[in-house]
Formats: sequence, structure tokens, C-alpha cells
Amino acid sequence: MLAVQLDQGCVSVVKRPKPRRRKGYALIRLRCAGLCNTDLELQRGYYGFSGIPGHEFVGEVLEADDERLMGKRVAGEINLACGKCDWCACGLARHCPRRTVLGIVKHPGAFREIIDLPERNLFVIPETISDEYAVFTEPVAAACEILEQVRIPRGERVAVLGDGKLGLLIAQVLHVHGAVVHHFGRHKEKLRISASVGIHTAIAAAKLPAAAFDFVVEATGSPQGLAQAVQMVRPRGTIVMKSTVHGTVAVDTAPVIVNEITLLGSRCGRFEPALRLLGSGKLRLDPMISARYALADAALAFEHATRSGVLKVLLDA
Amino acid sequence: MLAVQLDQGCVSVVKRPKPRRRKGYALIRLRCAGLCNTDLELQRGYYGFSGIPGHEFVGEVLEADDERLMGKRVAGEINLACGKCDWCACGLARHCPRRTVLGIVKHPGAFREIIDLPERNLFVIPETISDEYAVFTEPVAAACEILEQVRIPRGERVAVLGDGKLGLLIAQVLHVHGAVVHHFGRHKEKLRISASVGIHTAIAAAKLPAAAFDFVVEATGSPQGLAQAVQMVRPRGTIVMKSTVHGTVAVDTAPVIVNEITLLGSRCGRFEPALRLLGSGKLRLDPMISARYALADAALAFEHATRSGVLKVLLDA
Repeated sequence: MLAVQLDQGCVSVVKRPKPRRRKGYALIRLRCAGLCNTDLELQRGYYGFSGIPGHEFVGEVLEADDERLMGKRVAGEINLACGKCDWCACGLARHCPRRTVLGIVKHPGAFREIIDLPERNLFVIPETISDEYAVFTEPVAAACEILEQVRIPRGERVAVLGDGKLGLLIAQVLHVHGAVVHHFGRHKEKLRISASVGIHTAIAAAKLPAAAFDFVVEATGSPQGLAQAVQMVRPRGTIVMKSTVHGTVAVDTAPVIVNEITLLGSRCGRFEPALRLLGSGKLRLDPMISARYALADAALAFEHATRSGVLKVLLDA
Repeated sequence: MLAVQLDQGCVSVVKRPKPRRRKGYALIRLRCAGLCNTDLELQRGYYGFSGIPGHEFVGEVLEADDERLMGKRVAGEINLACGKCDWCACGLARHCPRRTVLGIVKHPGAFREIIDLPERNLFVIPETISDEYAVFTEPVAAACEILEQVRIPRGERVAVLGDGKLGLLIAQVLHVHGAVVHHFGRHKEKLRISASVGIHTAIAAAKLPAAAFDFVVEATGSPQGLAQAVQMVRPRGTIVMKSTVHGTVAVDTAPVIVNEITLLGSRCGRFEPALRLLGSGKLRLDPMISARYALADAALAFEHATRSGVLKVLLDA
């Protein structure tokens, strides 16, 4: 089978043997995969990654213990948990300390023709959801995670900082939830996607509104984003931290303490609410797809994804 | 009257006219005041402070509109709020954006023979609480604030980092609350105070327990404290930020996000729970008093308070 290989920043497409199916695992034929910023960071050498990247995908089950999965379109939870520890027992397998992570930590990723994943990681995609939308299940779940961590009342004003892929998804997810989203970004064309569904948008200028929101979601991907969020949040407000920034970030902790601000780290989410939301037809994702490449052209896809202004790049099997 | 004056790092004791009492205000004769780290930071030039410092005090009401206050021993809430805004209306006058702060922001502090404060800021000290204990009302309130912000179950293991004055108070307050406190510090003699009331103590060595606590209180006063706390907290755990550190702190945000950690800024607290706790006799504060000086010797008191290993220094009127 074809597989995308990352080695010291170099993307190549190689031939690999089809994975052997272990007990409890399914083999899934890739239909479509999405490039995430994390994949680009792996390429840049973060985490010393070498191997097959990719964790956003939709595929079709080829082999499984559970007959009901056969032939079904599925997306896959990216954390492969031990299933035995306290975290797994309480429904937080995403934090299992012994987990591996699809395409990120010690489990070959989704950019290959045939993927192996535990059956318990799989979610059947309803027929009403197209491949192009289903491939967003994982990042939409990451956006939905915010609503599982903090109670944001309907009608509440929320600032979302950052108009990258995740920022755009978060803005839409919170908007559909009923929040009054104010989306701040640096790219007029990207913010236009948010504006087209009725979200307030503004170019993040030097002067951002100060102490103006009880909830601020920081998804800029920039080391400066957190300081901006601290300025924008009201005393006793909450900043949801969604930006993965490498290295350390300089934070002025004094206003965090004086204003008793809550900073909340937020990562992956459950797939169930994401699939419900994708099935509702309330998200507008088409304008977020910038380009599609065949899996064999993954090197071009990676190159395309790093260009300025580009949003989601898909790989088709 | 005598007053302590801070000017460009210089402590002097000067004569000042007795303050004029405004409507709604009381005049209070100082009995005893405590030096806080904030006072030492003001001396070091933070906030460009110049004036009369001091915000921990107990005094006796000399003049007031409310006759019931006359002659009473009182402590005073340090935030002077507008009383009209939404914050004031919802009981969070401590966050009033128009507030001044006793001895810190635009209101002369408590290191003077006669203090003026709004009557609504005053709390009558029960007779069972000595002056030496009553002077701890404000910092004990800051420790109690943690329990108003996060629900810490009784029996829950909590790490407290830092064995300065605030760290010692926090350790005792959480211990009396029923938490199983593990107190990490760098001074054997200071930790001995915690150990004497039954708190687990340990010298904070290079290797601190990793991912070991659902709650970590960071009160080291050091820029390194937050990174230590991030290492010690379990996924989905909470770090209470109590250290006021000047300038920016370098934070590796990746583990905060990946482990979905909550960082919670925590500042001043309500005086009511602090006075209840002080009245209960369950706190052991005597060993925390390192020295007492007359108000007229404030310069010596400041000098003493900056010495290594010194805890609370009191000023007696």
C-alpha cells in the first residue's frame, strides 16, 4: 500500500506492507484525510517525529472483529488508550497516560491507504455527512470540547482570536451553540467565511477591545495570542487555550492573578457531539477546503498547506 | 500623626496631618499592622509607588457615621469600590474597575497612626481574636479565596508550593478545610510550622512528584513556580496561581493544553470566612511572627522583613 513518510522535514510517498490486523482492531481503507497544523509541525521537526503522519480521516472498514462495522464509513478517535486505567474507566481515555496517538505518538498515522485502529476508536459516519465534511470530525470535536469544559450561556458574547482552521471551526461551533461570537483575525478572506454565517468579525488590529469578554478563545497559534487574550477578558473571565505553540510563551501573570482569570487548556474532544453537529447541516465547511490532492501527491499537498492564506488541504485515496 | 512614607525605595517616618473624615468613612486608630511582600515590592519600585504603604492592619474606630462602630476593633477590606457598578452590585466589589486599593493604588495605606476607610470596608474583630491574629485577616482571606473559587473535596490531596508567608497560610487554611496538604518549600524552619500542625512537608528538590496532584497551589513567588506546578498537576487538574511575579513568566503552554489543565488566578478574598477561621482557633500563626517594631521604627522593620528566612514583621502603633 502507499503511505506518506515524514523524515527530518522531508515528505515522501513510499510502499509499505498492509498492516496486520490485531485482535480488537479494524483495518480501514482510507477515503479522505485532512492536513492539520500538527502535521506541519511534525514536518518542521517538533517532537522529533519520524513516520507516517495524519490523524484526520474518513475511511471504510475492510476487516474487523465486529461484523456490524464491515463496509461502514468511519472516522477514528485519535487517542489509542490502554482501556484499563482510571482515566479510561471514567470516560477520559483521551488522557490515558499510556496512550499512543494516531499519526503523532507511536502509532502510524492516517496518511496511508490502509489504517489500523482499535474498533472502539471508530465512529460510523451517518450517510447524510459527506466525506468532505466527515474528515472534519476530529477538529470539530476539538472545537466542541470547549463546550464540554465550560458552560457558555446562549446569548453570551464570546471572542475567538485567530482565523486559522481551528479558529474558524471554533467560531462556527460556538455560533451554532448560540453564543454571540466576535471573531478576530488577520485575514479578511478567512474572516469572510465566519461573516457569511452571521458571525461578527473584525481584523485584529493593534488595539483590541480591553476587558470586554467573559469568554475568550485563544486559537491564534501565535506566542502573542495569550497576552492579547489576557487583555481582552473581563475580570473573573475565562480564556480557553487552544493554540499549540512550541517553546515557552511569555505571560504577564500579574493581571491573571489580580483579575482572577481562569486559563483553561483545551485539546481533543469526543466525536459524538461533533458528528451530531456535522449531521445537523449547520456548519459551513466547504469554503474551508483550499485544495485536494491524491495521496500519491502528498509532498505537493504539504507544500500547498504551508502557503499563506491556505486553509484545509485534503488527501484523497 | 506619624506615617510611613515610601519614596523611590526609601522608607521614612514623617509627620502628616490627621486625615479629614469624609461622609461614609471612619477614622481608625492603628493598633497593629503587618508587612506584606507587596509592601516590599512597592519599596523596590514596582507600580511606581510613592506614598504611605500598608494594607494589613487592626485598629480601633475613633470616628464614624455609624455609632455602633465607635470604639470597636476592626480590620479593613483593602479595595475601596465605587459601590455603583455591576461588580459592586454582584458582591464582587474587589474587582470594581474604579476601585482604589489601601496602600497600593491611590489610597494612603495603613502604616499611619490614623487610617481613613469607608465604613462598609470595616469588619469588627471578635474579642476572642488577638491583635496579633487579627492583623492576619487580609492574608488569611486571600488564602480562603481559593476555597471560594474551586471546590476542593475534603480528603483531597493538594500540593502547596512555596513556604513564604502566603504559602504557609494557604497550607494551614486548606489543612483546616480538610484537604490532605503536601507542602513543598525550600526552608526547613518554615516548613516546620506546617509540620507542627500535621501537614505533610517536603523540601522542594530538583525532582518534584510529576502529574501527582489534582490541585496545586503555586505560591512560590518565583518565576519558576508555575512551570513546577504544571509538572506536578495531573491531567485535567487545577493550578491556583497565587504568586505575584513581576515581569513576564515563561510558560510552556503545550502541556497545559495537551493535559487540559486549568490555571486559576487568585487574589484577595472576603474577610468573613477569614474571621470565622481566625475565631475558630484552628490556625497556628504565632510562629509566623518574626519580629515586631514600633511604627516609628518602620525603616528597621522594612530592612528586617527583607532578610532571608524572615516571615511576618509587625508594626505596633
